[in-house]
Amino acid sequence: MKTVYSDDHRLHAAKVELIDGTLKPAHEKPVRADIILSRVNEVGLGEVVEPEDFGIEPLGRIHDSRYLIFLETAWAMWQKTGRDWDALPLAWPVRGMRAIEPDEIDGKLSYFSFDAGAPITSGTWPAVRASANVGLTATRMVKDGERAAFGLCRPPGHHAAVDYCGGYCFLNNAAIAAQWLRDHGCDRVSVLDIDYHHGNGTQSIFYERADVQFLSLHADPRQEYPYFLGYSDEIGHGKGEGFNVNYPMEWGTGFEAWGQALSDACNEISYFGPDVVVVSLGVDTFEKDPISQFKLKSPDFLEIGRRIASLKRPTVFLMEGGYAVEEIGVNAVNVLTGFENAG
Amino acid sequence: MKTVYSDDHRLHAAKVELIDGTLKPAHEKPVRADIILSRVNEVGLGEVVEPEDFGIEPLGRIHDSRYLIFLETAWAMWQKTGRDWDALPLAWPVRGMRAIEPDEIDGKLSYFSFDAGAPITSGTWPAVRASANVGLTATRMVKDGERAAFGLCRPPGHHAAVDYCGGYCFLNNAAIAAQWLRDHGCDRVSVLDIDYHHGNGTQSIFYERADVQFLSLHADPRQEYPYFLGYSDEIGHGKGEGFNVNYPMEWGTGFEAWGQALSDACNEISYFGPDVVVVSLGVDTFEKDPISQFKLKSPDFLEIGRRIASLKRPTVFLMEGGYAVEEIGVNAVNVLTGFENAG
Ligand SMILES: [Zn+2]
Ligand SMILES: [Zn+2]
Repeated sequence: MKTVYSDDHRLHAAKVELIDGTLKPAHEKPVRADIILSRVNEVGLGEVVEPEDFGIEPLGRIHDSRYLIFLETAWAMWQKTGRDWDALPLAWPVRGMRAIEPDEIDGKLSYFSFDAGAPITSGTWPAVRASANVGLTATRMVKDGERAAFGLCRPPGHHAAVDYCGGYCFLNNAAIAAQWLRDHGCDRVSVLDIDYHHGNGTQSIFYERADVQFLSLHADPRQEYPYFLGYSDEIGHGKGEGFNVNYPMEWGTGFEAWGQALSDACNEISYFGPDVVVVSLGVDTFEKDPISQFKLKSPDFLEIGRRIASLKRPTVFLMEGGYAVEEIGVNAVNVLTGFENAG
Repeated sequence: MKTVYSDDHRLHAAKVELIDGTLKPAHEKPVRADIILSRVNEVGLGEVVEPEDFGIEPLGRIHDSRYLIFLETAWAMWQKTGRDWDALPLAWPVRGMRAIEPDEIDGKLSYFSFDAGAPITSGTWPAVRASANVGLTATRMVKDGERAAFGLCRPPGHHAAVDYCGGYCFLNNAAIAAQWLRDHGCDRVSVLDIDYHHGNGTQSIFYERADVQFLSLHADPRQEYPYFLGYSDEIGHGKGEGFNVNYPMEWGTGFEAWGQALSDACNEISYFGPDVVVVSLGVDTFEKDPISQFKLKSPDFLEIGRRIASLKRPTVFLMEGGYAVEEIGVNAVNVLTGFENAG
């Protein structure tokens, strides 16, 4: 299959993130994409192409316009206050607080986020635009007849909601892709999120919709970030009831139990019958991932690809998390070769 | 007037806070209380006494019991994960997320906070207990007939809500004091919050109650932390409608405009007719405060004390913010001597 990739991901290179009670070097860093790309080439997965520019319109189909303006202008506002380091928020609008966008940049950063893990840098806006275009270009290939395509998105997207960033994510690439498919002739789209973390952003975006099914396999929110979404009783609401499926699993889960959940999710997808499957491809389920607690091994990712292929649906793979940098190329590309080899 | 003070405030000495996009040395530090105490002695304000222990019961009248258990056990849980530095949260439950307390400590820290400005340390629990006892002891003195008393509370309290900490605050000393007065024969209590920052915690605690009036003079949330409460249209709700009064003021506000708001607040208090006034005494309105943007000068604090005295009500002063350490003693004690000298 073809891979879509843009060097512009490099424009977003956050220095730090708030984790473990301190600011640590950002786990979500440019070398992640470099290593995946080099593995794509090493195994001869297929042609690597540049993304096309889809403009702002597909982003506005998912994200609030004020949030997009914020992402575009935040760095300039931050710099104007005399600060040249990564921009991070100061406080968050939790229960009982008001949803009013403040005027000052520290307040805007606070309003449009849910953690201090998505720093805004000088190049964040062009990088996240490129990442969304990477996803959309891969999506169009599939819409135009390819069996599958790989969007090597970076930064990732699945934690980003309609109007907040967090968890290294700014624009929800998978949601933007799914909506683009809906706007271009597809009646039903499934988003299958296999990242270690719950895809809280994607879930929240489609929670009341029956046309985009969302399924997420992830660490139990009682134990793991993002904590405040991802329970199994979140089944969708209103028209969307029944179209959101969560598989929270305990720390220490290995491929046996994880694979059972994947099989169950695949059954749900088959029953839904989507025109296209969008896979939020995180490989932080890997046993050596530095911020995660599942126990998947590198060969398991081949099997994941095979099972997704067995759905026999046009499939877009969009890169999400994975922080065991040395093995990220092998693990991510294993999913893709597992898919291809299943024929 | 008498001052209530406990050395136990020293047990809470956070190393850092998340501010300006980075971790900076904590502004809320033990020397603040030391300098205020030495100024109390220098001007001969009156006797300095130790707090009595009021036990856990008055805290439970304001705070959720699960939150209190969290505060008591958080450091041990954090340490058990092998970390010996200040405990900070990782993410926050913003709009659309669920209010379920996670099992793991990083999740609990995230659930029970609204920023990364209230680190939990080895001594936080005994220190905040002592701070509440300081406030309650001063409150009982006034209940028992003193014209006024000063509770030199540290850590401060007014940002702490029923079940979350933030902004250097863990237990809401002023709210605990006001409730104790209600539980001991007072029909009506006014809490007058003159800290630079909105007293979001105190407001949220009493928002639906008519027996505790809350008035706050503070920087406009459109510009200033805590951003998501403090607007003038927040007038209380249900039975509490009309008993919450906010005076948001722009950055750069000096004593002329600020004093107008104080006069207005005093009129509201007179009209309400409380048995006791609890003053949340922050002096971060001072022109040289390092994290604030108002322009009050040291003599203005004398005038603040005089105006509060003119209410002719039994009055409890409880220390909140103020980060211009060199002048914090003069400014805080100026309010108290201004009050005393008004006779
Ligand atoms: Zn992840
Ligand atoms: Zn303050």
